Amino acid sequence: MPTTLITGGTVVSSTGRTSADILIDGERIVALLEPGSTVLGANLAETADTVIDATGKYVVPGGIDAHTHMSMPFGGTTASDDFETGTRAAAWGGTTTIIDFAVQKFGERLQDSLATWHKMAEGQCAIDYSFHQIVGDVNNASLQALRELPNEGITSYKLFMAYPGVFYSDDAQILRAMQTGAETGLMTMMHAENGPAIDVLVSQLLEQGKTDPYYHGIARAWQLEEEATHRAIMLADLTGAPLYVVHVSAKQAVAQLAAARDRGRNVFGETCPQYLYLSLEDQLGAPGFEGAKWVCSTPLRAKEDHHQDHMWQALRTNDIQMVATDHCPFCMKGQKDMGIGDFSKIPNGIGSVEHRMDLMYQGVADGKITLERWVEITSTTPARMFGLYGRKGVLAPGADADVVIYDPSGHTSIGLNKTHHMNMDHSAWEGYEIDGHVDTVISRGKVVIDDGKYLGRKGDGRFVRRDPCQYLI
Amino acid sequence: MPTTLITGGTVVSSTGRTSADILIDGERIVALLEPGSTVLGANLAETADTVIDATGKYVVPGGIDAHTHMSMPFGGTTASDDFETGTRAAAWGGTTTIIDFAVQKFGERLQDSLATWHKMAEGQCAIDYSFHQIVGDVNNASLQALRELPNEGITSYKLFMAYPGVFYSDDAQILRAMQTGAETGLMTMMHAENGPAIDVLVSQLLEQGKTDPYYHGIARAWQLEEEATHRAIMLADLTGAPLYVVHVSAKQAVAQLAAARDRGRNVFGETCPQYLYLSLEDQLGAPGFEGAKWVCSTPLRAKEDHHQDHMWQALRTNDIQMVATDHCPFCMKGQKDMGIGDFSKIPNGIGSVEHRMDLMYQGVADGKITLERWVEITSTTPARMFGLYGRKGVLAPGADADVVIYDPSGHTSIGLNKTHHMNMDHSAWEGYEIDGHVDTVISRGKVVIDDGKYLGRKGDGRFVRRDPCQYLI
Amino acid sequence: MPTTLITGGTVVSSTGRTSADILIDGERIVALLEPGSTVLGANLAETADTVIDATGKYVVPGGIDAHTHMSMPFGGTTASDDFETGTRAAAWGGTTTIIDFAVQKFGERLQDSLATWHKMAEGQCAIDYSFHQIVGDVNNASLQALRELPNEGITSYKLFMAYPGVFYSDDAQILRAMQTGAETGLMTMMHAENGPAIDVLVSQLLEQGKTDPYYHGIARAWQLEEEATHRAIMLADLTGAPLYVVHVSAKQAVAQLAAARDRGRNVFGETCPQYLYLSLEDQLGAPGFEGAKWVCSTPLRAKEDHHQDHMWQALRTNDIQMVATDHCPFCMKGQKDMGIGDFSKIPNGIGSVEHRMDLMYQGVADGKITLERWVEITSTTPARMFGLYGRKGVLAPGADADVVIYDPSGHTSIGLNKTHHMNMDHSAWEGYEIDGHVDTVISRGKVVIDDGKYLGRKGDGRFVRRDPCQYLI
Amino acid sequence: MPTTLITGGTVVSSTGRTSADILIDGERIVALLEPGSTVLGANLAETADTVIDATGKYVVPGGIDAHTHMSMPFGGTTASDDFETGTRAAAWGGTTTIIDFAVQKFGERLQDSLATWHKMAEGQCAIDYSFHQIVGDVNNASLQALRELPNEGITSYKLFMAYPGVFYSDDAQILRAMQTGAETGLMTMMHAENGPAIDVLVSQLLEQGKTDPYYHGIARAWQLEEEATHRAIMLADLTGAPLYVVHVSAKQAVAQLAAARDRGRNVFGETCPQYLYLSLEDQLGAPGFEGAKWVCSTPLRAKEDHHQDHMWQALRTNDIQMVATDHCPFCMKGQKDMGIGDFSKIPNGIGSVEHRMDLMYQGVADGKITLERWVEITSTTPARMFGLYGRKGVLAPGADADVVIYDPSGHTSIGLNKTHHMNMDHSAWEGYEIDGHVDTVISRGKVVIDDGKYLGRKGDGRFVRRDPCQYLI
Repeated sequence: MPTTLITGGTVVSSTGRTSADILIDGERIVALLEPGSTVLGANLAETADTVIDATGKYVVPGGIDAHTHMSMPFGGTTASDDFETGTRAAAWGGTTTIIDFAVQKFGERLQDSLATWHKMAEGQCAIDYSFHQIVGDVNNASLQALRELPNEGITSYKLFMAYPGVFYSDDAQILRAMQTGAETGLMTMMHAENGPAIDVLVSQLLEQGKTDPYYHGIARAWQLEEEATHRAIMLADLTGAPLYVVHVSAKQAVAQLAAARDRGRNVFGETCPQYLYLSLEDQLGAPGFEGAKWVCSTPLRAKEDHHQDHMWQALRTNDIQMVATDHCPFCMKGQKDMGIGDFSKIPNGIGSVEHRMDLMYQGVADGKITLERWVEITSTTPARMFGLYGRKGVLAPGADADVVIYDPSGHTSIGLNKTHHMNMDHSAWEGYEIDGHVDTVISRGKVVIDDGKYLGRKGDGRFVRRDPCQYLI
Repeated sequence: MPTTLITGGTVVSSTGRTSADILIDGERIVALLEPGSTVLGANLAETADTVIDATGKYVVPGGIDAHTHMSMPFGGTTASDDFETGTRAAAWGGTTTIIDFAVQKFGERLQDSLATWHKMAEGQCAIDYSFHQIVGDVNNASLQALRELPNEGITSYKLFMAYPGVFYSDDAQILRAMQTGAETGLMTMMHAENGPAIDVLVSQLLEQGKTDPYYHGIARAWQLEEEATHRAIMLADLTGAPLYVVHVSAKQAVAQLAAARDRGRNVFGETCPQYLYLSLEDQLGAPGFEGAKWVCSTPLRAKEDHHQDHMWQALRTNDIQMVATDHCPFCMKGQKDMGIGDFSKIPNGIGSVEHRMDLMYQGVADGKITLERWVEITSTTPARMFGLYGRKGVLAPGADADVVIYDPSGHTSIGLNKTHHMNMDHSAWEGYEIDGHVDTVISRGKVVIDDGKYLGRKGDGRFVRRDPCQYLI
Repeated sequence: MPTTLITGGTVVSSTGRTSADILIDGERIVALLEPGSTVLGANLAETADTVIDATGKYVVPGGIDAHTHMSMPFGGTTASDDFETGTRAAAWGGTTTIIDFAVQKFGERLQDSLATWHKMAEGQCAIDYSFHQIVGDVNNASLQALRELPNEGITSYKLFMAYPGVFYSDDAQILRAMQTGAETGLMTMMHAENGPAIDVLVSQLLEQGKTDPYYHGIARAWQLEEEATHRAIMLADLTGAPLYVVHVSAKQAVAQLAAARDRGRNVFGETCPQYLYLSLEDQLGAPGFEGAKWVCSTPLRAKEDHHQDHMWQALRTNDIQMVATDHCPFCMKGQKDMGIGDFSKIPNGIGSVEHRMDLMYQGVADGKITLERWVEITSTTPARMFGLYGRKGVLAPGADADVVIYDPSGHTSIGLNKTHHMNMDHSAWEGYEIDGHVDTVISRGKVVIDDGKYLGRKGDGRFVRRDPCQYLI
Repeated sequence: MPTTLITGGTVVSSTGRTSADILIDGERIVALLEPGSTVLGANLAETADTVIDATGKYVVPGGIDAHTHMSMPFGGTTASDDFETGTRAAAWGGTTTIIDFAVQKFGERLQDSLATWHKMAEGQCAIDYSFHQIVGDVNNASLQALRELPNEGITSYKLFMAYPGVFYSDDAQILRAMQTGAETGLMTMMHAENGPAIDVLVSQLLEQGKTDPYYHGIARAWQLEEEATHRAIMLADLTGAPLYVVHVSAKQAVAQLAAARDRGRNVFGETCPQYLYLSLEDQLGAPGFEGAKWVCSTPLRAKEDHHQDHMWQALRTNDIQMVATDHCPFCMKGQKDMGIGDFSKIPNGIGSVEHRMDLMYQGVADGKITLERWVEITSTTPARMFGLYGRKGVLAPGADADVVIYDPSGHTSIGLNKTHHMNMDHSAWEGYEIDGHVDTVISRGKVVIDDGKYLGRKGDGRFVRRDPCQYLI
């Protein structure tokens, strides 16, 4: 198999930095080596098929985006990135694994939904992928099917406390699912917003003629995120199920997670770049229908209440453990515009899969998190959380050769007409400037991005079976 | 330089496990390799000078005990382990680095105290060592001297809120020292107990004829640890100094640390094996003068209040970040017995430097922490906390070859007449049984413990200069 | 109108004690007087129609039990006390006002339910009474009807988060009702237990053959009370509705209330004597079917978790504001025994309306609350909470002459064959001994209990119109 | 003795309002009467010596200012109000009792200091007065003297955690004093600021040329108030002493008090009008030396951190129990101006004794507290807290006839050249407008203020012996 040597770089792990060369043999890393060491009796720089000079750059494990929704059906339309376009954009941004969601609809067999998603993804992906299982219909059959998921390499499932009539599970269903989660070791992922209450507020706002995107944020008040977060924690406490709350955006929800963790509970929280950078006032409240670009749930939160600052702090103190994107893009034309005159009809979602590594690196450049924490929240923790560590999330012998060479002296200008590869007619991050650059991306040993060129192809990515969460005793 | 290959083991880091061989060249690790990989073109098992078979065993970074007191003068006597006996015992137990304390006495130049400690340690140690600086006399001169410490490779200093008239600093002194800490990046370490209040209680108990060792624990009430911990946190908050609270034993003190961290403060906490296993009732309250063996400060806490359980939980949830020993042994005869009839005259301290790795591993065996967390709290976090990471605390190319091969199928019986190497006439851990065993210990490339034999010698260990804490932005 | 002079006693209010005579003219108090004062130019002891000597005794405002369920339909049967027997028993125990609940069933007009309850109570009561309105069917019509309640003298309504299919409101309904509560100033009362989750646990326990009364307590876990309490608080926070949580039994629910109050929210909590004295282990867990006597919801809590102690503490610190009984008695024979072999069929309820004043006074005798706090939690706060103060809850000129003369030197033995007046075939408080005695009870100027005799008659009690809660700004 | 009838008013207590006439005989209230009641057989309006028409007005118990410092020696000068001028100003403002502080200096016998203060006050006061005892020198003799204080009618003593070298007690002294407090039932009052730390900051600021009054507020950072508050709570917890923290100004200190109370501790907090209305930015930061008017300790807090709003909230939720003034006036000329060029030399204190009732009533007018809460925090709670209830703090038969008739339709303009009666050359409250007016003030039966005239005279006021705190079990 062809060998690759990455030499001269600073290898950054979630705990620290070392000067080391990385030797790749085929799809896997086979060695980490002291640069210039002669003890191995070989001049690798000469014998390796490919040598990549990473001098002055960071060499980090490929990003793992544990929350994406390619081709997600939502509100009568479908997320604009499919597995092909979405994973390719991910690769451009230094993400080498995604965990997407198979969606069981109400009335559908859970197994069938998983099969559907396998079919959608297979042969399409630029990078490796796995699935979480959305359970949209908690009943005896789907609970039984949950028990089989680990055999399918799937060790996490997701419930929704929002979206009554669509994905919503009531508390009886949540309790039963969590009991199954506790028994099987499956991670329970939760969309924690009080959907029934939100729907009342949505109706009332629309009746009052408050139809602009801004009111999406008003209807989904922080109280309803804090509430649902606490409810999920209590049901997890009762059942013993490990719990992972997705897309946390309210500081009060963070406080609930922190309190549960301080009591020793296996409770985890994810946030997304939009909750760290964007706000109710500036984005959702943009003039006219512009705010529709940033309609997602949970919503962007008020800057005046400092949610964004608290979220950075929580990332730093590990009250929030990791960052995913909740990538679920929709075009303005033909998709978001379905909600002109009625914010509740705007498909929910923001496209960020391409920018997560950069946006989080900017936190390093801005002095908000350490370089090591960047690696941890974008790769190592996602790997450990969802049973991929060893193969992903770390640069070590035996690991898949998913590697990003990141240049702290480079620069990235985000924008639609710059280097945007997601299938969207706008960028949610237009104008963001990053003090760093993804130079080279290697996916299972293959250089897929280098020097501003995509060198991979559809089908490079494979389905990855996952072990249980690696944080639990 | 001679090379060593550790082959067949499971390399455990603070984030996960991999099957990897480790190649050592002289004093340092030069490579981590996929076992059996032929890509390097060399059969290392044949070419290495030494090959160690670690099949079925864990290969972990050597332990770092960041809190020891060799030859510590206390209460008119001196800790019974000197740098020779103490570091050798440490090596027996899988600890390859200690950070001891240079003690500035009142009236002494700080620089002189450091010189004294260098002299005591140099050429005596079995393993590498560094120093924290105790500041027993905060004044303009010692604050100025503090600013020079980083140039000496020392990046942390310690104050005492206890022991008025000995090491005690009042709040004015603490504030001034912390201001210096904030400016210089030195870590402020704090013995957080309200000494003036404790001394009142001690006097009253003695007047009441309550002279047994048990009353040492009564006098040093948890309220006085919680109080001092909060006080230190507030002074750190005011000055911006990073804070590390040593030997936390009360669950209420942990709650104060957790709350500060949830508010985003750079506050850290250390606990010790005695606070995880031993109690006021069972050990301090042992019949007669027996309890003197476990007189240390902070004291053992009440089992009925579940402090021990909370401490394990805090270790798991990272409300406490690491485990050191506060190793400060005294013999019963001629030392501890100075306090017969007056518990306040019992020299404070327990000897554990030899057993920390084993005692914490038992937490893994008992299902209280993960294997990865064991590595983290005993080695990786101490290294990062005190500026050693890269050289210590991790198995990576370029790192010092400090390696422990730990056998999870082995067994260790702790006891004075079993395999006790500390200079004590008793063991504080007599009768503890460990479901694991330190098989081999390598210190900077040299096998110093193997197959029940000590193969090193006095002077193997060197002073290690430290960088600033690696957790700070 | 006939006049009554109560002389020589210690008048106790919620803030303190004074030696004062009380002069009653007809139904109302007309004066509080310094004993022996001659300034008024009249020897009242001679001119008053009746003179009651209260020397050595406490003179306190008549008890207000703000939570009773006379003739309550539940689980296919009806509470065994009707308004006649229940209010007479109340009078025996020093309670001179009850606030019962009109019950809107699903599908029923709210106005009709209120009319039904008026009809049941009118002409039957020994003491004054009012109603809260239970809303069992939140819809546009009942919300409109809620707005009219203040005109009917009713200023509070109650929702249930438990009992799906019976009284249960979902979060959308709760939100809409609370919005109405916020607009109208109606107090929202909440039964805070997560009913859907409880019902899952009930089914599972029964399937496992766990059918004894004890499992009623297991199914209704504290997590589900804490959860619902927090949820109610968040919905109240969002809407601005004042909130009153009924029958709080779990210490964790108290913590949620306390936290909300510390954040400045208008949140209040009620507990009941059973949660202060009785436990899961001792009562619900009594041998055989005996525990059925104490099946009520929220359930009795575990003594080993110290819920009872925390509840007393919360009463003392005002984290819980008042004590009602949730009086809802059922006989063992013919009612409770419906649940032999299936705890879920045991009608929920305990009879305590007769004993509340005594049981709480015992808290004074035991040093757990002050004498003033006894008056506050049993009379003054209930009056202020539910808009009766001025007429009830205080001994002052103009107030209804509802007076209890309580003898701290007396003694009361509670038991079925002693002086039990509730319509039950057992006592939930059998064997409780009280260090005090209700000597005389005056209801709107009429002596109804004196010297162990009931002197009133059916129809003495009148419906009392209530003002809004008097704690709100 | 002459009789007075107050008729037609709304009598307001801490729990509610009633229409009642009040009959005073000599110095005491002898009856509360229903207006127009004829049952007593006397037309009081004709027979009373004096009849006061209170129609349309509130009749409330005279204010109790539990924290004043008349003739207080501080920083080389003496508070500008003595007992004559200060108590007369108090009377003008509706305060009929003050509790001042006898000051034991270091080295002085505690008994002598009390005698000195008795001598200063006797025959000088316009209204009743009592003393707390400041203990400036905690030693065996003063602790013994503390035990005798209850026999002197003094049931509270105060310590300082601030002002090293003047009033400061160290933690050993505090602990010993609190032990005495716990044994004797004396209330421990605490000035909770970390003095040693403050003094360091003061020196540093002055060295940096930051000499303006504003820096008084910077030096006394909120962290040092929170810290000392927590420390006092922990020492109280350890000893069992009831604790009353004076002049709380930081929201974080309130949070510590609230947490202690939620844990069931006998911990109380006082705030002052200045912490509810004034701020670091607007007053202390006034141009030039103007800010000196508002130099007091604890200092005014930052408006941008919302301390003032939190303090109003805490008053409403009873996390803070009462309001006193800490009245300690100094003139600008000859006193405050000692600190020109050095803020640390500005005598600490604000004069408010005349305005407390008005300033707090404005909270009622502004909808921040209820009318009842106004009575509670200004009179009833101070009476109960410091053992005066029954005689003071309530309008009831047997109580001292200390009555204020307050006109909610009146208006009060505060200002030096308006109706200022304190001995100051400025008003700290210049320009404050109050939507109400103190019409009539009766002190022990004598009308001392009426219709804008002072009718009393020096020596009207008497020393009042106090019982223990009436909140404790």
